[in-house]
Amino acid sequence: MKYSPDALARLNDNPLYRTIGIRIDACADGVAHSTMTPRPEVCWPTPQPHGGILFTLMDTSMAFAALSTADEDSGCATVDCSIQYVAPAKQGPFTCRVATTRKTGRTVFVRAEIVDAMDEAVAFAQATFRIFNVRAASKD
Amino acid sequence: MKYSPDALARLNDNPLYRTIGIRIDACADGVAHSTMTPRPEVCWPTPQPHGGILFTLMDTSMAFAALSTADEDSGCATVDCSIQYVAPAKQGPFTCRVATTRKTGRTVFVRAEIVDAMDEAVAFAQATFRIFNVRAASKD
Amino acid sequence: MKYSPDALARLNDNPLYRTIGIRIDACADGVAHSTMTPRPEVCWPTPQPHGGILFTLMDTSMAFAALSTADEDSGCATVDCSIQYVAPAKQGPFTCRVATTRKTGRTVFVRAEIVDAMDEAVAFAQATFRIFNVRAASKD
Amino acid sequence: MKYSPDALARLNDNPLYRTIGIRIDACADGVAHSTMTPRPEVCWPTPQPHGGILFTLMDTSMAFAALSTADEDSGCATVDCSIQYVAPAKQGPFTCRVATTRKTGRTVFVRAEIVDAMDEAVAFAQATFRIFNVRAASKD
Repeated sequence: MKYSPDALARLNDNPLYRTIGIRIDACADGVAHSTMTPRPEVCWPTPQPHGGILFTLMDTSMAFAALSTADEDSGCATVDCSIQYVAPAKQGPFTCRVATTRKTGRTVFVRAEIVDAMDEAVAFAQATFRIFNVRAASKD
Repeated sequence: MKYSPDALARLNDNPLYRTIGIRIDACADGVAHSTMTPRPEVCWPTPQPHGGILFTLMDTSMAFAALSTADEDSGCATVDCSIQYVAPAKQGPFTCRVATTRKTGRTVFVRAEIVDAMDEAVAFAQATFRIFNVRAASKD
Repeated sequence: MKYSPDALARLNDNPLYRTIGIRIDACADGVAHSTMTPRPEVCWPTPQPHGGILFTLMDTSMAFAALSTADEDSGCATVDCSIQYVAPAKQGPFTCRVATTRKTGRTVFVRAEIVDAMDEAVAFAQATFRIFNVRAASKD
Repeated sequence: MKYSPDALARLNDNPLYRTIGIRIDACADGVAHSTMTPRPEVCWPTPQPHGGILFTLMDTSMAFAALSTADEDSGCATVDCSIQYVAPAKQGPFTCRVATTRKTGRTVFVRAEIVDAMDEAVAFAQATFRIFNVRAASKD
């Protein structure tokens, strides 16, 4: 699927991203870049974004990277994901970078990292996605 | 750490949980139960809670399970976590159950599952936490 | 697939299992039990079985648990797996127990644990498998 | 810890590596390279190395990468590891490359990949290690 700047702008204007402070900056050919300026509501119990919020940034960015490798009318689902929190997420905005490492049939493997405002690594993830056709009932 | 019903009530009244719709129901001796009635804002791009939101429910519930094995004045950090999404999260409220599988020094290993309103499994996770003393500078 | 005691005996008589010291004890309906009496060659750099050897016990036992949920003429492949080493593997023989948590189409989700001779937990894993038909070229 | 060519040669001459067909080629400053020419005994049930054997190559290579960031007299233990099998391991020898992504106190985070003889990716992993002093009783 192709994501034009206009399409990304429309995509980014959604309740989940507004609630958290996420924006997909670029997404094409299995690669995605995104930014999070976390809203105060999701920074708890410390002034840093919750680990689940960092994961959400990863997961949604990886999903669009995976979709960018698929045909039009595709959707995707996270099969599983592993995340490592390697340093406190002290100083935002945070940048997430995703690369697709392999696509086999409808299975897409991706890797992602989040860095802070000083480009220091905060988290790493690797995940497996399944692509499906949104117009057909998925049989598997 | 001990969590009385009053302490849990105060704990649950925080901006992250209100934004998502999370409540810790019980937490003692390495076990935690929680509930999520997801707010519409975090149900995107489908009417189901986003995978990152399900992860957030897991992560925060596991953290309190881990803390319940620790001394007073303890904090904890997620070292890493793996999550499997085994079925669509169609029908809430969702229940998360956490069990501590092992504690070794300041490292706590936990497992969690989320089930839907019909008690069908939606997601499984296993994670590693590190306990630290909130009054001392962590040296490790 | 069904595994009779005779079929398991034939299955267990293979070079990998002999090299490591693995035996599948039972396998049916998504559940598998296995035993490892590790050979000295795979206990390095300590007198304990190497972490990769414990993983191998998990992976092969999970694969047969997954296959036991599938039709005859099925094979399977590990998509991904996460393992936690929660305690030193001091005292064998080691027992591995696998349960299938969910099957969705050709995707099978499993969980496993290894315990030592005192039934103390040594390792936990969760994994995702894909089933394929060994007589057909897999298209996905 | 420093690994001279002589030290690596002595290290590589161990029963586990001989049984599987593993060799650590280089290891310094958090980076490790290794090679596996799998022995026939560990290629079962297909002519390819078992997934657990690929994991063993990853795990042992990551451990030496982690140790290369530590003081002399250090040992290490795998806390947890996630592996993705992105393609069949058809054509060896196989090369494993490890990079340390972060070291925090005694916790070391690493990432690894295995490629086949055509430099095509076969597996990806990320893992967490704990460093300990082999001369002192580990207190955590």
